[in-house]
Amino acid sequence: MSHTRGSDARTLPMPDLQNSFPGPFATSPYANAIEEQTTHWLQTFPLTGSPGEAKALCNITAQGVARVLPTADQDSVFLCADLFLWLTAFDDTHGETEGSRDTTRLVRRISHCVHLLAGHDEPAADDDACVAALRELLHRFRERATPTQYLRLTAHLRDNLFGILWEAHHLDRLDQVTLSDYYAMRPHTVFVRTVMTSTEVGLGYELTDNQRASPAVRELEKAVADLAGWINDLASYAKETDRGGQTPLSLPTLLIRHHECNLEEAFHLASRMCEHQASTARLRITELTADSTNALANHARAMEAVAASYVWHIGHARYKH
Amino acid sequence: MSHTRGSDARTLPMPDLQNSFPGPFATSPYANAIEEQTTHWLQTFPLTGSPGEAKALCNITAQGVARVLPTADQDSVFLCADLFLWLTAFDDTHGETEGSRDTTRLVRRISHCVHLLAGHDEPAADDDACVAALRELLHRFRERATPTQYLRLTAHLRDNLFGILWEAHHLDRLDQVTLSDYYAMRPHTVFVRTVMTSTEVGLGYELTDNQRASPAVRELEKAVADLAGWINDLASYAKETDRGGQTPLSLPTLLIRHHECNLEEAFHLASRMCEHQASTARLRITELTADSTNALANHARAMEAVAASYVWHIGHARYKH
Repeated sequence: MSHTRGSDARTLPMPDLQNSFPGPFATSPYANAIEEQTTHWLQTFPLTGSPGEAKALCNITAQGVARVLPTADQDSVFLCADLFLWLTAFDDTHGETEGSRDTTRLVRRISHCVHLLAGHDEPAADDDACVAALRELLHRFRERATPTQYLRLTAHLRDNLFGILWEAHHLDRLDQVTLSDYYAMRPHTVFVRTVMTSTEVGLGYELTDNQRASPAVRELEKAVADLAGWINDLASYAKETDRGGQTPLSLPTLLIRHHECNLEEAFHLASRMCEHQASTARLRITELTADSTNALANHARAMEAVAASYVWHIGHARYKH
Repeated sequence: MSHTRGSDARTLPMPDLQNSFPGPFATSPYANAIEEQTTHWLQTFPLTGSPGEAKALCNITAQGVARVLPTADQDSVFLCADLFLWLTAFDDTHGETEGSRDTTRLVRRISHCVHLLAGHDEPAADDDACVAALRELLHRFRERATPTQYLRLTAHLRDNLFGILWEAHHLDRLDQVTLSDYYAMRPHTVFVRTVMTSTEVGLGYELTDNQRASPAVRELEKAVADLAGWINDLASYAKETDRGGQTPLSLPTLLIRHHECNLEEAFHLASRMCEHQASTARLRITELTADSTNALANHARAMEAVAASYVWHIGHARYKH
């Protein structure tokens, strides 16, 4: 797929989200405190490689979670930040290129996490920092979440780990990934439904099953989930292609193949797709917040903040040259 | 590991469970009806290879589920039987040897199942029988299960699929599997916790979270879960070693390596381990059924029937030469 080369990814078209998510976005007063807390947490559980990587990760996580939970209490933002940090560090360190080099080792690492997620949390002698950190996180979530929230959170975490595994198996087999497979898996690899659920825990509300199954909620969540993954793909494309020149497993790559177009056309198309999902999300948020006092309105505002955080974070230095 | 060869697996020591699970075990009056139903279901969803394989699978599933749910209504036993059939057929057809040949293809198959389990059940044009059957099963479970039961069931199903993937990655890398990893993963690959949860749905009771977290319930479930996997390993060892002579990923294999013993000694040790778990389960069942009217007693009797079914099924022709 050498036709993905040649264009300078830094000058490619990007989605215009000014109409649907104009910003500036509300930010938690604990943003700096989150950065300190996550830095401290990474000293207890050394999950990343270099101090430089840790610092950048704590910064983007703190700023991102401060936008996901602008009104939540300090314990909630700390908890969600540590969880997001754990997922990102796991993916960076054990997934992606490292995971694709030895998928069996990645499967084994994930098996230790699945054991915890399935409720078996006795410490083992050979626990590494990654397992110990997840055990601590799950303990904190069990203290705050309702039983149903906890079940939903641990289900999404399983899907995130499976998504990391799916990605590792396909990094050098892009031709085997269909667009519909990619659409299905991308929300798992960008962790967005886990963020949504940890937001519900942090804000202390819970939808009924009927509310959750309603077309308005499902469409809102799907739009935010797709938007999160796709704008991340566009923002990180330049960085991804810099990694040894391998074509990234990313929306533009798949659009190029599916539509037999060039990179600029793929970015143009992907940008329109992002704008469409952002606009769908905005319409549903407006609809659901019309009665501003019920759980549906809480949920719509929470999803708005999740979207805002992903929209904000694509401008962070993590995705720049 | 050529020292696992030589003994005739058919004459090796087996656990004596007469004291803890003496049998004969109560059996549903719908046993024959289940066999007819599963045969019909496999015509709608052709999940297995040959008609002979399908017939043997329907027979063992019907007889096994008839012992798991001796008192349940017909719809419940049909539903649990179809689910167990689906899991076994998925494992036989796409996991094991076939899965280990192309783990990436197995990951993709599982990704389609994970998509359904995560609640996205819109039919796709390229759905195969396996995905269509799972969609139908999940629809039937949603109709009968409480929201919490459904979340727990779909979490266990994810773990089963991950277990199949874990096994496929390790079939030719047995040296990378530790005993503690094996103990953790075996309940997932024998589907026993999914059977436990589908039993709760079928019998229409639900434990509170405190009941489920109690030491008595946890120890009972763990004992039954370990027993189910280990007796299956002992019963299927002869059949597994017949498959082209490859050393099976199985408890005896790992005990031989860990204790540097021979096959007969490993079977002897594994038999004692099975007897110990069976005895632990029996003690907890006696304790929990002392007050015979509450949900804990229902649960203990349900777990007793799950254990009975696994104890019964190791004598089935599926595991004979």
